[in-house]
Formats: sequence, structure tokens, C-alpha cells
Amino acid sequence: MKTLHEAIRPTTFLEPDKLKTHLGIDLTIASETFQITGSFKFRAAYNLALNVPNGEIVTASSGNFGQGLACACQLLGKKCVVVMPETSARVKVEAVRNYGATVDLIDTKRVRREDRVRELLETMPAAYRASAYDDALVIDGNATLGAEIANYGNFDSVLVPVGGGGLSSGIVKGLCEIGSRIKVYGAEPLLGNDAARSLKAGRIVANEAEPLTLADGARTLSLGKLNWEILRDGLAGIVEVSDENIAESMRFYFGLANLKCEPTGALSLGAILERIEDFKDQKVCLIVSGGNVDTELYRQILAG
Amino acid sequence: MKTLHEAIRPTTFLEPDKLKTHLGIDLTIASETFQITGSFKFRAAYNLALNVPNGEIVTASSGNFGQGLACACQLLGKKCVVVMPETSARVKVEAVRNYGATVDLIDTKRVRREDRVRELLETMPAAYRASAYDDALVIDGNATLGAEIANYGNFDSVLVPVGGGGLSSGIVKGLCEIGSRIKVYGAEPLLGNDAARSLKAGRIVANEAEPLTLADGARTLSLGKLNWEILRDGLAGIVEVSDENIAESMRFYFGLANLKCEPTGALSLGAILERIEDFKDQKVCLIVSGGNVDTELYRQILAG
Repeated sequence: MKTLHEAIRPTTFLEPDKLKTHLGIDLTIASETFQITGSFKFRAAYNLALNVPNGEIVTASSGNFGQGLACACQLLGKKCVVVMPETSARVKVEAVRNYGATVDLIDTKRVRREDRVRELLETMPAAYRASAYDDALVIDGNATLGAEIANYGNFDSVLVPVGGGGLSSGIVKGLCEIGSRIKVYGAEPLLGNDAARSLKAGRIVANEAEPLTLADGARTLSLGKLNWEILRDGLAGIVEVSDENIAESMRFYFGLANLKCEPTGALSLGAILERIEDFKDQKVCLIVSGGNVDTELYRQILAG
Repeated sequence: MKTLHEAIRPTTFLEPDKLKTHLGIDLTIASETFQITGSFKFRAAYNLALNVPNGEIVTASSGNFGQGLACACQLLGKKCVVVMPETSARVKVEAVRNYGATVDLIDTKRVRREDRVRELLETMPAAYRASAYDDALVIDGNATLGAEIANYGNFDSVLVPVGGGGLSSGIVKGLCEIGSRIKVYGAEPLLGNDAARSLKAGRIVANEAEPLTLADGARTLSLGKLNWEILRDGLAGIVEVSDENIAESMRFYFGLANLKCEPTGALSLGAILERIEDFKDQKVCLIVSGGNVDTELYRQILAG
């Protein structure tokens, strides 16, 4: 049984000369597109599956956490059920199944995910209910990436995609634990800007409905409670990113960095495009959280 | 002025779990898609530009070597002229210009590249004429990748794309110099299989015309002389790869490894698809030589 550090792939740092020249910014990419299962979520999922005593784990996930958890459970010999919306990217559904997990597809217009998870748990009393973000084990798993970034370079700022807050709170915690002073900025879809509104209000504010942003990994109703406790004081700010700049960032990565990136992963570069002047004189690290995107959607985005 | 080892980015090793499971082969990717200028050619170009005494360098290149040389000359403060066919991928022409080099576009149906280079050299008597493959400095530059592969893992075989033979001869030399016994297989487009025919004939055999394979980095007439001297005994074999398997490999990399790869870079995985049984029980390293591909072509290939 591998420890967390043995199981994960260290992040892939890229310093793309063409992109740096084009934008005129000293940027480094921390790409989790080559992480096991293709996104950072494996860090969280493995840490959780490794440390809970239960032999069965149930979760609701729009895709990448489900994939990470399915893979972690397969490696650790645990049973895994993943509740997913019918609208999830097809490649993500297939990948979860390929890792040996049971996929439970629901129509989110009729059934709320948490209700379906509760229903399942009644038939699986020994199972652990895993949140994709609002869990201390998830945050600790993601904190490993914060530590890797601090060890790599002397950055002024790190920009990180925000959905439920699992990754961003992990980065804040990971940097904090080793005494790093790198500033952490969240990058959130403008179409689902609950975290930005929460920071302004000083309390968790939820989206009215699941936001229909291109960034399918950030289609969350609100930040998790544990994540909020860390983010409320831990973030230097949040940048709201239009879907246009998410798509443009994916094209920049393709054309100027040879990097295949999923929409949610492109949020951090999107934040640079939104506020380029704010980051001009900084040494910036952009976290690309994952690379799993449907082929047809990717083709459409490349067409511009 | 940086040394060769200071200037290059170490190759990016990937061990894509989904692709390995799908093919049932223990494979590792050595990806040069994140090398400076997006392909391995920078290794060769920098080593050449660093070590020739001339302040001006002229070359003919279908793209990636031109880009690598332009960037190397920019870093080293040398003047650079790149003769390119009008049919070159647009992104490659633009990239060469962005590195400050002069691009000399020719109609290869009317003017042979070597004639145009000779013509240019008459007006630039102090210039060095750089071959993209048939030059000891090119081979030595590429040999650095062979050494990196030997140091990374205990592979049985390494598969490497073959065009003019610059990379493959460099890999053979690099492995040989450190006493590695890893077998080197060339992966060549079936539509331009001069290297395979050369190995059979025991002498350099040329294609009748520039082969119209998808793998634009391998549209060479024949192996170089210095490359042939190394490859004739240094290769364990050559696999001829259909354009269909080149395209299929690009789709596999996209879908199962989150890797954006150019057609020529996909030759090594294409060789696996051609002869999967031969490599089933081996620990294999696939060299992905570069990632620079036109967006529209990539979209077409993804559509399948």
C-alpha cells in the first residue's frame, strides 16, 4: 500500500517561452494534467481513501473527483460508488467505470445529488460519504501541491481555479504549513461567482442554481464550510473569469505551450487575461488543475 | 552564454495510466513537446549555434529545426536565415519569425532547397550552412536525450521517430556513450520509408520525391550520411507506420494521456500500434519528438 507521496505524481512545471513572450509575464505553469487520472483530484481522493477506515466510499462528483476516487479505491482495494449528473463529460463517466467503480447517473433537475447520496448510504451503512472538497482529508491531500510549488520557485503569486474550494484551500494550507509568503489568488468563473461574492459578504453565499459555465469542474453551488474557513482569510483575492477568457486561455495553452487543458484548468490563465496589468511585474505560478475534456468540446473551443 | 545543458529543458517523462491500461503495455513517454521551441530540435540547434565560430547561420528546414535554430541564434546573438517550403505549417513559419530569424519561403516544386541555400551562401560568405540532421554537432546535441532516457529507467527498448536520422542517430550515440544496452527502434512513415529500405539494402536509399505523409517532420528525401553511419549498425529495427496509425496515436495521446502531440511525434506510438505483439512484454520508452501542429489540422485529426 503506497503512502500519499509515493502514490501521486509530482506536478509538472512548465515555463513556456512562447506564452511568456506573448503575454510579457514571467509565468510558470504547475500542470496537473499528467497527474494520475488526469487531474489534481487524485491527490485528495487518495489521501481520503487511504485514511478513512471504511471499505466502501460513496461520493457525488461532476467527474474528476469521481475518477480520482475510483482510481484510489481500486489501488487500495476499496469499493466505490460515484453519483454523477447525466450531463457529465462522457470521457469522465467512462474513466470512472474503467477504474472499477459503480457510476450512478442522475437527472439533477429532478434529484439533488445529496439526496441521492443519502439514499445510497441507507443501503450501504458501512460506507464513508466523501465530499469532493469539504473534507479535511481532501484539503490535506491537495496541500501537497502547495508544498511542491513553494519548493519549486520563489513566486510572488499563485493563481488557482476555484469551484468548491478544495484545491484553493489546500494550496493555502500547504503554503502556510511551510511558512511560504506566496500570495494565493482564486480564479473563478464569472458565471458562477459565489466565492467572489462570499469574500465580499464575509460569509458563504451560494449560487442560485448550478452555474452553466464552460468550466464544468466549477459548477458548484457554494464553497464548502471547511474550505471557507481557510479561504476567508487565506486568499489575497478572487478574479472572476468570463467563459470567453476560459476558451481563449485553452487556445493559448494549445498554440503557445503545447498544453492540452480542460476548461476548469484554464481558469488561472483566464484570470491573467482578465487582469493582466495587476500581474505584469510579478513572478506568477498558474495551476492547471486538469486536462480531461471531451474531444468534441475541445474541437469547438479550438475553432474559436 | 549558457552551456548546452543549462539551455535545454530536461525531457518530460510521463507514465500515462489510462494509455498503459488500454494498450496493455508498460510504456513511458519521453515528451519533447515542452522543450524550448516545442520540439527536440532545440537541443541540436543550440549545440550547433554554440559551437560553430560563425556569426551567421543558414539552414533549410521544414519547420522545427528552423524554429530551434532561430531561438538558439537569438539567445546567442547570431544572425539566422531559414529557408522553408511555402507548404510549411503556418505556426512554424510564424514561430521562426518571432525568434528574430529571416524566413526565406520557396516553392519546392520550382527550386530545390539546397540550391536556394547555396544561392544565399554566395551572398553570405561568412555564414555556416547548417543541416537539420547531417552534422556531428546536431547528432551530439540530440545525444543528450539518449543519456536522459538511460538515466531515467531500465528500458528494454526506445522507439524514436525517423526523418533525416538526426534524432535517432543522436539517441543511439547517447546511449552508446554511457554503455546502455537499450535497443533503439526507428519509427518511420510508411509513405516515406527510405530508412527501412536503406537498412534492407545496406546503403542509403532515397525517396523518389518528398513524401506526402502527415508526419511533416519526416518529409525528407533520405537519411544523412553521418546519421547513416551510426544507424546502419545502431538500430535494432525500423517499423513503418501508416498515416492512419499516426493519426490514431495522436487521438490516443489526446484522450488517454492529455498530451498534445504533432504527427511526427506520434510515430513512435504508431509503431507500437503497427506491431503491438512485438512489444507486449517489454518496458518501452516512446520518444515524442515535438508538439507543434497547426490548429486546423489537429482539429481534423481529432475528428477521426
